[in-house]
Amino acid sequence: MAAREIVLYTDFGSADIYVGQVKSALHRIAPQAAVIDLAHDLPPFNVRTAAHLLDALKNSFTEESVFLCVVDPGVGTERGAVVLEADRRYFVGPDNGLVSVVAARAAATRISSIVWRPRDLSESFHGRDLFAPVAAHIAAGTLPPDHLMPLPELATSFGADDLGEIIYVDHYGNACTGIRVSGAPRDAMLAARGQRIASARVFGEVAAGAPLWHRNSHGLVEIAVNRGSAAQVLGLCVGDPVRWTD
Amino acid sequence: MAAREIVLYTDFGSADIYVGQVKSALHRIAPQAAVIDLAHDLPPFNVRTAAHLLDALKNSFTEESVFLCVVDPGVGTERGAVVLEADRRYFVGPDNGLVSVVAARAAATRISSIVWRPRDLSESFHGRDLFAPVAAHIAAGTLPPDHLMPLPELATSFGADDLGEIIYVDHYGNACTGIRVSGAPRDAMLAARGQRIASARVFGEVAAGAPLWHRNSHGLVEIAVNRGSAAQVLGLCVGDPVRWTD
Amino acid sequence: MAAREIVLYTDFGSADIYVGQVKSALHRIAPQAAVIDLAHDLPPFNVRTAAHLLDALKNSFTEESVFLCVVDPGVGTERGAVVLEADRRYFVGPDNGLVSVVAARAAATRISSIVWRPRDLSESFHGRDLFAPVAAHIAAGTLPPDHLMPLPELATSFGADDLGEIIYVDHYGNACTGIRVSGAPRDAMLAARGQRIASARVFGEVAAGAPLWHRNSHGLVEIAVNRGSAAQVLGLCVGDPVRWTD
Repeated sequence: MAAREIVLYTDFGSADIYVGQVKSALHRIAPQAAVIDLAHDLPPFNVRTAAHLLDALKNSFTEESVFLCVVDPGVGTERGAVVLEADRRYFVGPDNGLVSVVAARAAATRISSIVWRPRDLSESFHGRDLFAPVAAHIAAGTLPPDHLMPLPELATSFGADDLGEIIYVDHYGNACTGIRVSGAPRDAMLAARGQRIASARVFGEVAAGAPLWHRNSHGLVEIAVNRGSAAQVLGLCVGDPVRWTD
Repeated sequence: MAAREIVLYTDFGSADIYVGQVKSALHRIAPQAAVIDLAHDLPPFNVRTAAHLLDALKNSFTEESVFLCVVDPGVGTERGAVVLEADRRYFVGPDNGLVSVVAARAAATRISSIVWRPRDLSESFHGRDLFAPVAAHIAAGTLPPDHLMPLPELATSFGADDLGEIIYVDHYGNACTGIRVSGAPRDAMLAARGQRIASARVFGEVAAGAPLWHRNSHGLVEIAVNRGSAAQVLGLCVGDPVRWTD
Repeated sequence: MAAREIVLYTDFGSADIYVGQVKSALHRIAPQAAVIDLAHDLPPFNVRTAAHLLDALKNSFTEESVFLCVVDPGVGTERGAVVLEADRRYFVGPDNGLVSVVAARAAATRISSIVWRPRDLSESFHGRDLFAPVAAHIAAGTLPPDHLMPLPELATSFGADDLGEIIYVDHYGNACTGIRVSGAPRDAMLAARGQRIASARVFGEVAAGAPLWHRNSHGLVEIAVNRGSAAQVLGLCVGDPVRWTD
C-alpha cells in the first residue's frame, strides 16, 4: 500500500520554526507519505472555530488522508490525545473539541485514546513528539495496535450544528461563517455587524467595493466584497455573530 | 518519463488555507511531480506587475517545468482559461494577461484554450478545481488532447516591452522594477519618487543606509538600500513609476 | 544510500520569491532528498542570534541531515563560504559566524572552504547559486572533492558560551533566550526588562496572562505568558539582555 497523505492543520505559524520540526518527525517514520500544509495560522486559542472550519475543509482531501490537528492551548495539562476515524479519514490531535465537529457529523466514527507516550516528550510540543509519530505511523500503516485504546466518546464536543459566527477571515479579507450552504436559503439576507447583505453567485456580480454573501469553495456561507476586503469594509472579526434576516 | 516540476505562482496567500487544497488536487493526479512554491503573496488585483515578474522568474526553473499561475480577480466571470507553451515551459492560468509577457517575449509559443470543465467546478476556486488538474496532467504527461483547443492569441496582452514601474517589493524592502538589466545602461541614474539613485554592483559597495540600484538575481533592475529597506527609506510601492535620468 | 534530508535555515522570507528558486536548484541535483523548511524569517541582519538558535534547533533533525544556512548581509563582499561537518550533520553557508556556535560546541568537526564557483554566480543570491548546489551534492553524495578545501578555523566565531539575550520571538509571542536549560537553575528567577520572572513546568501552571520561564522544546530557557504574548506583555525584543537573579 502506498502511504496515505498527511495533512497539517495547526496554529504553529507558517512563518515560524515549528512546522519543520514536525515534518522531520513525520519523514523519519513515513518517508513515502506526501505531507501537505493546509493551515498553520489558525487563531491560537479558538478551538471551536477551528473545529468547524476543519469539518468543511476535510472534503478537499482524499479519503484515507491523515489529518494532524493541533490547536492546543492546554498542552502539558491533563487533556487527552485522540485518533478519530471518521468516514475513512483519520484525525490525530488533542481531545479538546478540535476534531469534535467532524466526529459529530460523520456517518461512521471510531474514537481512540492515544495511550502511547514517547520516551522524550517535551512539555510544550506534543505536535512534534506525540501527534506526529502517531500520524506518520497511521499514514505508513505501521501503528502498533497497543498505542491506542478505544474511547467511548470525546471529552469535549461542540456538536453537529452550524455555527452562526465568523469562523475564519482569509488574507483577501473574505469572512467565512460556520453556516453550511446546504441549508442556506438562496435569497435570504445575512445580518452581520448591523448590516444586511444580499447573496451573489460570484464576486463580479456586484459593483467593485460592494458586499455580498456567497457559497464558498469549501461549502460554507462567506461574506465578501468585490475587489476589496470584507473584513475591513464591514469590520468583521473571527467570533462575530451572523444570522439570517429578511 | 519522470514527472515534470510544477511551480506555483499565485496570490492564494502562503499563510492561508488555499495552497494545501491545490496541492492535494495536484498530488492525486501527479504523485511523482515535485511541487515548488514560487510565490503565493502576489498583490491580489495587479495582474500586470505579476505578468512581468513571472517572465523574469521563470528562468530560475528547469525547462519542461509547468507553472500554475493564478492572479484572478475575475474568477467566475467570462474570462477564458489557457495553457501557454513557451520555449518548452508550460504556463496554466486565466486568460487575463498573467501569462502574456512570457508569451510576447518567447521565441516559440503555442497557446491553447482549456475547454474541459470538471464536474464539480466551484465559482471561486478555479485554481484548485480547473487549473490544478490541467497542470498536474501536463506534468504527468496524461492530459487528454480534447481538454485543449488551439487559440490564435491571448485575449489580453501586456506586450513584450519593459515596464518602468516598481513591480515587486520583497520582505527586505528591495524594490524590483520591470526593467530588464540586458538593456540597462551600467552608469545611468535611476529616478524614483523624485530621487536620483546611482548603481552599485553589490549592496556592500555603498554605506549602510544608502540607496543603490543593481542588477538583481533574476535579471531585473532593482532599487535597494544597504542593510536597510529601500521601500521604507524611499517610500516605494508596487506601481510607482521609475525612469532613467542623467 | 538514500539521499540525506536537507533543512533550510534562512532569512529569505517564507512569503517571498526566493525559497522556491532555492528548491528548484536543490531538486535538479538531489531529486530524492526531502527538503524541509525550518526557518525563513530569521531577522535579516542578526547573525549572532541566528547562530545560537541554529545550535538548539539542529537536534530536532536526523543525523546526517544537511543544513542550508543563509543569513548573509555581506553577500557579494569578500566573506568566505564554508561547509561545517559537526557530529555527523552538515552545515553549508557563509563564513560569517552563522555556523560557529554549532562548531564551537560540537565534539567532532571538520571545516572546509567552498572553493568551487558556479559559472553563473549572481552577486546577491548565493543561496540559490552557490550554497544550494553544494548542499544538494552533499545530500546526494555526489560532491566532487575538489569543490572543498580544508580550512583550519572559521573566520568569525561567536564561541560556545550561552547568550544571555532574547534570540528569537515566535508568533505566539514566546521569547526564547540563548541560555541552555542544561545549566539552568530550576528555581531561579529570570530578570528581563526590569521584571523578575519565576519558572513553571507548563503554561497552564500559572494564571492566564501571567508570565513564566520554562524549558522549551528545543532545550533553551524561554519566557512565556499563559494564553498570551510574552513579547507584548513584557515588551521583549530580539537582543534584549536577560540574566539570573534572586
